[in-house]
Amino acid sequence: MHATNLIIKKRDGLELTNTEIAWLINAYTHGEIPDYQMSAWLMAVFFQGMSARETAALTMSMAESGDMVDLSQVPGIKVDKHSTGGVADTTTLVIAPLVAAAGVPVAKMSGRGLGFTGGTIDKLESIPGFKATLDREKFIANLKKYNIAITGQSTAIAPADGKIYALRDVTATIESIPLIASSIMSKKIAAGADKIILDVKVGSGAFMKNKADAIKLAKTMVRIGELVGRETVAVLTSMEEPLGTAIGNSLEIKEAIEILSGRGEAALREVCLILASQMLILGGKAQTPESGLTKLVSLIDNGQALAKFTEFVAAQGGNAAVVNNINLLPQAKFSVEVINDCEGYVRTIDAAKVGYAAMHLGAGREYKGQTIDLAAGLVMNCRIGQYISQNHLLATLYSNDETKLELAGLLLKQAITIDRGPVDIPPLILGFVDKHGFRDRLA
Amino acid sequence: MHATNLIIKKRDGLELTNTEIAWLINAYTHGEIPDYQMSAWLMAVFFQGMSARETAALTMSMAESGDMVDLSQVPGIKVDKHSTGGVADTTTLVIAPLVAAAGVPVAKMSGRGLGFTGGTIDKLESIPGFKATLDREKFIANLKKYNIAITGQSTAIAPADGKIYALRDVTATIESIPLIASSIMSKKIAAGADKIILDVKVGSGAFMKNKADAIKLAKTMVRIGELVGRETVAVLTSMEEPLGTAIGNSLEIKEAIEILSGRGEAALREVCLILASQMLILGGKAQTPESGLTKLVSLIDNGQALAKFTEFVAAQGGNAAVVNNINLLPQAKFSVEVINDCEGYVRTIDAAKVGYAAMHLGAGREYKGQTIDLAAGLVMNCRIGQYISQNHLLATLYSNDETKLELAGLLLKQAITIDRGPVDIPPLILGFVDKHGFRDRLA
Repeated sequence: MHATNLIIKKRDGLELTNTEIAWLINAYTHGEIPDYQMSAWLMAVFFQGMSARETAALTMSMAESGDMVDLSQVPGIKVDKHSTGGVADTTTLVIAPLVAAAGVPVAKMSGRGLGFTGGTIDKLESIPGFKATLDREKFIANLKKYNIAITGQSTAIAPADGKIYALRDVTATIESIPLIASSIMSKKIAAGADKIILDVKVGSGAFMKNKADAIKLAKTMVRIGELVGRETVAVLTSMEEPLGTAIGNSLEIKEAIEILSGRGEAALREVCLILASQMLILGGKAQTPESGLTKLVSLIDNGQALAKFTEFVAAQGGNAAVVNNINLLPQAKFSVEVINDCEGYVRTIDAAKVGYAAMHLGAGREYKGQTIDLAAGLVMNCRIGQYISQNHLLATLYSNDETKLELAGLLLKQAITIDRGPVDIPPLILGFVDKHGFRDRLA
Repeated sequence: MHATNLIIKKRDGLELTNTEIAWLINAYTHGEIPDYQMSAWLMAVFFQGMSARETAALTMSMAESGDMVDLSQVPGIKVDKHSTGGVADTTTLVIAPLVAAAGVPVAKMSGRGLGFTGGTIDKLESIPGFKATLDREKFIANLKKYNIAITGQSTAIAPADGKIYALRDVTATIESIPLIASSIMSKKIAAGADKIILDVKVGSGAFMKNKADAIKLAKTMVRIGELVGRETVAVLTSMEEPLGTAIGNSLEIKEAIEILSGRGEAALREVCLILASQMLILGGKAQTPESGLTKLVSLIDNGQALAKFTEFVAAQGGNAAVVNNINLLPQAKFSVEVINDCEGYVRTIDAAKVGYAAMHLGAGREYKGQTIDLAAGLVMNCRIGQYISQNHLLATLYSNDETKLELAGLLLKQAITIDRGPVDIPPLILGFVDKHGFRDRLA
C-alpha cells in the first residue's frame, strides 16, 4: 500500500476500505508515513468528507492504536460522558457522583484544561490531597467499591489520535465533522465505555456555532457508536452564555457541591439532570427520562448524591471535609467586583470572552504544561434576558495576582451587551440525537 | 504572518495577497515552514484553485527564489520554448537551430529525462564530446556568436519550485492547473526568456488527456505571462501517439538531423514548423505564420538550418561529423524487429506504453541519477489510421542489453491496437492560445 494512492483516492472522492484506513493510521502512528503526507490526506478529508463506514473504521483504528481498557470485570453497564467543551461547564463534577449514586458505574478518564476550556482533572486537583492519577488496579478497585473512579487521560489511550490531533492543529484541518467525531469517539471507546452520552454544546461559546452543524456532528458520533457496537446518545445543549456561574478550578468544585446539595444555578442543574437521566436509561437504571429525573432529584434531596461525591473524594485521597467547609479549598488573595454601568436587559454574554477573562486571572492555560492558579477565576451574577439596574454586580473576579484583575474586568465587561428592550432567553436544551435521528425532545 | 492562517484562507476559498504568497514561498524555501503545512496548503489549492493574480504572484515568488538570468546584453528578443512532455518529442532539437538560423536568439536551459519522458540534455550528450554544462560566460558568448546555446538546468534556477514539486509528487497535489502552470512558467522566467512559446501536449500519451484541460492550462500560463510582462503563446499539439518515429537519445538526434535535412516524419516536421513560426513572430522575425513557415522551409531546403545545428554542436564541443555520418553516434549492440501479426487499421498507439518500452530498453530513467543507454530505444514504423498487412514491421528495438528486447517487444505490441475498419486520423494541431484566448487556427 502507498500513502500517495490513499491521498489520491480520498482527494478524488472515493471511499477508502477499512484495511486501507487501518494501514494508514497504523503506519502514521509508527512514523512510517511522514507528516506531510498525512496532512495532505487530512486536507483531502476536509474537502471530501468520509462515509459513516470510513469514519467508524478511522475511529476504531485510532482507538486500537494504544491500550484498550477492559472493564468487563466491573459489573454493570459502564456509561461514559463527554462534553464537546464549554465555559462554566461543571457537569462532569455533578453528574459523575449523581449517576454513581443511582447505581451506574462511572469510569472516567478526563483531561486537563487548555485555552478557555477547563479540565475536570485540574478542577479535582484543587481539592487538597486529591490524586488524579490512578493505576489500573486502583482504578478498577475503586470502581468496584464506590461505583466511581476518575483518572487523568493516559498517553497510552489512542496515541494515534493524539498525534493526528497535533498535526490537524497546525494544518487547518480541525474543522472537519468526521475528524472531530472520530477523535472524540476513539478515546471513549479505548477507555472502555460500553455506552456513551455526549453533551454537544451549541452556540457562540461552543465549537459548533449553530444547531445544524451540531446535529451533523452528533449524528456522526451516534452512527459511529452504532457501527462499533457502543450505543451512543447525544444531547444538544446551549453555550450561548456560560452554563454555570463559576469559572475556575476550586470555584467550580464549590459550584458542583452547591448543585449536589440541591442549590445553585438552575441552568447548570437542569443540564446535569437531563444528561444524567439519559445515562440512567443507557445504564439500565431508568426506563424513561421522567423516571430517571425523579430518581436523580430524590438522590440530591436525600443527600445521597453529595454523600457519593464525599466518598469519591476521600477514596482518591482528597480532603472530604471541603464538602462542608469550602474555605478548605484554595482561596485567592485578591478579588474585585465588576459593576454594571448602564441599566437594561442582558442581550449576550460571550462565553469565550468570559473564559478568556478567567484564563487571564490564572484559571486556565495558554499552552500545555503551564502552571495554573487553582483559586483563580470568576463567578458570574447575570444571565441573558435578565433585567439589571445600574450598579448591579456582574461578576466577582478572583486571582492571586493582583495585577491581572483590571484587564480581566475589562474583558468581562466587553463580553456582556446590554439592550433597552426585553431579550428572549435562548433554549437550554436544543434536542437529542439517538439511533432514530434528531428529536426536539425525547418521548 | 502565520502559515496556519494562510492555509485557512485558501481552504475557505479566499484569495491570498501577493505579500502573503511571497512570504509563504520564501519561508518554505528557507525551511521556516514545515513540509506538513505546505502540503496542507497545496491540497487546499488543489480544491480551491488560485486566481490569475495569485498564480502570477506564486510564479514570480518561485522564479525569484534563486538566480534570475539576465540576458539583456544579448541583442534581440530571446524566445524560449517549453513542451509539457511527450513521447518521441524531438521538437527542441529541431526548432532550436532552425529558429536560431532565422535570427531569433535561442537561450535554453533543458532538463534530463525521467520516466518515459526524454530530456534534451541526455539526447545532446549522445553526440560524442558534447558539453551540456556551460558556465554563464560561455553561455552568453555562444549565444552572441551563434544565436544558440543550450545548457543543463541549474539547481540555482527557481529552487522553490524544485522543493515544492518534490513535495507535490508525494502528496497527490501534482494535478492542479495553477500549480502546474506556475511551476513551468517560474523556470522559464528565471532562465531569462523575454517571450515564451508553449507546446501543450494533449491526448492519451500526455499529462493533459483532453482538449478542455489543455486549453485551461494553456490559458493559465498565457495569463501568467501577460501579468508578469513575458508574452506567452501556447500551441496545443496531439500526443495521441508518439510524435516522431524515434524514441531514445542517439536515435532522436538522428531523427532531428533527418528533419533539419528536409526528410523524416511528416508529423514531427509539421509540429516543429508550426511552433518555430510562432517563435519567429514572437521574436519579431516574421509578421504572419505563413511568412514564418515560408522562411523556415527555405532555411531547411537551403541547408542553413542543418548548418546551424552543425555549428551549434561544434561550439559546445560535440563531434559535428555526426551530421554527415550518423554511425559516429552510439550504436546498440543488439536490435530486433517487431512484426505485426493481424492485418488491419492502426486504431491506437499508446504513447506512454511505447515510452515505457523504450525506457525498458535502457533509453530512460526509472529514478533520478540512473545511468542510461544512449544508444537504446526504438524506431516506430506505423501511425494511427495506417493500414498494415500481416508481417508489417511495427518497430525496430535497440539495446546494449539483449535480455531487454523480449519484454520491450511485448510492451510495444500491447501499445498498438488494430481495427478492421478504417480509423480517423486525430488532428495534429488542436489550436492556439494567446492573450486573445483560444483559437482553432491563427489568422
